[in-house]
Amino acid sequence: MAWFGRKKQDDDVVEEEIIEEPRLPEPPAADAQGLRSVADHTAYLLELVEPLKPFGMSLLEAWDQVMCEDIDSMINVPPASTAKVAGYAVRASDLLDDEGHLAPPLAIVDADVDHLPADAAVVVGAGDVLPRGANAVLPSSFAAVEENHVRLIEKVSAGEYLRAAGEHLRQGTRLLSEGDVLGERAIGLLASAGVDKVLVRPRPRVVVVSSGEHLVEPGAEIRHGDVADTNSFMIAAAARAIGATVFRVAVHSNDPDAIREAITDQLIRADLVISTTGGRREDYETVASVMRDLGLVDSVDVLMTPGRTQTFGLIGDERVPMLMLPGNPVSAYVSFHAFARPLIRRLMGARTEHRAVRAIASGTLRSLRGQMHLLRGRVWSEGSVRHVEQVSAPHALTELARSNALIVLDDGIETVRPGEAVKVWLIEEE
Amino acid sequence: MAWFGRKKQDDDVVEEEIIEEPRLPEPPAADAQGLRSVADHTAYLLELVEPLKPFGMSLLEAWDQVMCEDIDSMINVPPASTAKVAGYAVRASDLLDDEGHLAPPLAIVDADVDHLPADAAVVVGAGDVLPRGANAVLPSSFAAVEENHVRLIEKVSAGEYLRAAGEHLRQGTRLLSEGDVLGERAIGLLASAGVDKVLVRPRPRVVVVSSGEHLVEPGAEIRHGDVADTNSFMIAAAARAIGATVFRVAVHSNDPDAIREAITDQLIRADLVISTTGGRREDYETVASVMRDLGLVDSVDVLMTPGRTQTFGLIGDERVPMLMLPGNPVSAYVSFHAFARPLIRRLMGARTEHRAVRAIASGTLRSLRGQMHLLRGRVWSEGSVRHVEQVSAPHALTELARSNALIVLDDGIETVRPGEAVKVWLIEEE
Repeated sequence: MAWFGRKKQDDDVVEEEIIEEPRLPEPPAADAQGLRSVADHTAYLLELVEPLKPFGMSLLEAWDQVMCEDIDSMINVPPASTAKVAGYAVRASDLLDDEGHLAPPLAIVDADVDHLPADAAVVVGAGDVLPRGANAVLPSSFAAVEENHVRLIEKVSAGEYLRAAGEHLRQGTRLLSEGDVLGERAIGLLASAGVDKVLVRPRPRVVVVSSGEHLVEPGAEIRHGDVADTNSFMIAAAARAIGATVFRVAVHSNDPDAIREAITDQLIRADLVISTTGGRREDYETVASVMRDLGLVDSVDVLMTPGRTQTFGLIGDERVPMLMLPGNPVSAYVSFHAFARPLIRRLMGARTEHRAVRAIASGTLRSLRGQMHLLRGRVWSEGSVRHVEQVSAPHALTELARSNALIVLDDGIETVRPGEAVKVWLIEEE
Repeated sequence: MAWFGRKKQDDDVVEEEIIEEPRLPEPPAADAQGLRSVADHTAYLLELVEPLKPFGMSLLEAWDQVMCEDIDSMINVPPASTAKVAGYAVRASDLLDDEGHLAPPLAIVDADVDHLPADAAVVVGAGDVLPRGANAVLPSSFAAVEENHVRLIEKVSAGEYLRAAGEHLRQGTRLLSEGDVLGERAIGLLASAGVDKVLVRPRPRVVVVSSGEHLVEPGAEIRHGDVADTNSFMIAAAARAIGATVFRVAVHSNDPDAIREAITDQLIRADLVISTTGGRREDYETVASVMRDLGLVDSVDVLMTPGRTQTFGLIGDERVPMLMLPGNPVSAYVSFHAFARPLIRRLMGARTEHRAVRAIASGTLRSLRGQMHLLRGRVWSEGSVRHVEQVSAPHALTELARSNALIVLDDGIETVRPGEAVKVWLIEEE
């Protein structure tokens, strides 16, 4: 991409206007050590990514996706007013004369009348739909039939002895709002209200690109210095778990051309590219240099442990968002939850906040002040109270596999004592 | 299906053997009113259904499915022992002579030696893989090189200055067990341990067959007495949410031949058939009679509110399980959670228990003694404590849509007072 200056003529002054290379918007200010807070970094990334364009889908196709319109009921439930008892559909105001006495007999008209005429009645059975204009049912015992007329014995008031149209759900009632997720019960609600199509944002397409020359596919022979590619599998599954459509591509080299080609080949079907590596310094640097070739990049150290090193870019002509995760598996996983999850949910148009709850710490938890420290934890319930314990194991992936939550020690926290409540992000159903 | 008696010859006695029609196994005993407990009914249904046959899948394909083998690590992590410092890979027992003094100099041999010979050493840098046979690293400063030999200055013991193979994860360590769900972190763990394929049970294929002559598709005109088909959409989405592959088929008639044909057409791709109807008595009776035509059927009233009427069968030549849900949307939904969910999880080979937790009731909850009463509820957390409130609304689907839990009042419970803990089944992520 070449960027040219061009001449601009302003009166007699000819000045050269420097057109700067495009850049990302100004990132948030860092602290004295050049570090950025997690909150600032998250907000910055979310600002750089737009929700996907919505489209109309049938109800079942749209399952688990995020509404991007408000939906009102198309119909009344029940759809029409019906008689609760056998008798006569009437207009209550016809039942009394001007002096408040029972009115003279009402003419019985056909049940298939379009609209109830004045001073008339329609014979109805329990459950029958009332003609328009009728607003009450006169039970059979409240009247007597005489020569095709109904002689009144007792009056009823408007609304009596009927089940009104819209009594359960009135046409126009707000059912779901933009941003709501279309779960099974919401689908039932919409179907019951006569809605068959909704405007939702599609599932984001996430391409996980794995690179690093010492990575081998799981199952392949592991030679000296090699390591089985782990992060790309774990991250691909994690992206799928939060609702993305995921493609995994493995380069397993540090050849910049091969990595560049793998990424650019995928851009056509990527709403987000996530890079995972084998964790060596050169893996990370190669991907970072490819990202800089392909677009606008922000590399920063954030005040988070693990997962300090964060690189994000908008790459290719379409400025597709790309996130490079750290190479260490725990750092990669924690960074995924801290940053990739909100980005994917932003693409979906869903709430980007974490599933944060509080739980009682079962042991002492320690952090470094001034960092957001994310420990691996296991949450369980005793009675109505949530508890959490820190999980640790010599093998990083064993540690993760035994966890169902990340314990979030915010930057002001140094120590949490047993019995104190602590914030956790739930990363698995309990 | 015709069942013939056949002649059986036994010595001189010719006796007619009566071959009985096949039947379902004896159902559990009912109470004095002929009602079956929810626990008994659930256990009975689960006994009639087998987990699906497993097959091998690649890791990402198998995401969110249930393992049906134990998996041990294929490799050591790290895969080989490596030096922590620069120095000499040695066998610790070579460093001392019989009297416990430092041994004579060790011969330096090539780094690519297959197995470390006796009284030899290999020059290693930090991070280098040790040759087989070496069990310690002698740091450079503990020795001096003399004429292609290493003269010992200080000894080391076995295991010193090295990172041992399998230190993080030893080959053969149990990673996952049968019945575990293959989530993202479990996938990471398996990949890290060199596992690329696993034996899982496939997603059950659930066919939802909707019937009832007064049902119309959502979006279609609703004439007098018609109602938009709701249950089949809600139940199809609910089955999908718990991991099934779902097909929805709508008959929208009460013609037994049409319903029979719709069901038998689907049996080839069904691991479970679920019937939903429009809620009229005749809808239910038509499906029940079709089920009896097609196979072996158990119809029973269970001690549950809502969802008292339950019909289950094994139908067609392959004895495919089929569950008929009640027609009322709330009864259908509650019955789905009570009975269809465990059945689907049984097919998956997953744990069939509900996601039961306890929550503090915010208001008074009332039940009928002797019934399992399932109320619609909304669970939320304050600090580390879960709370729940009953949800009610005039429109059944609005009520469901606002709920995220079912409050389970077991048969011994009549009243739960505000502040008391009550059991809930979580039906949505918090």
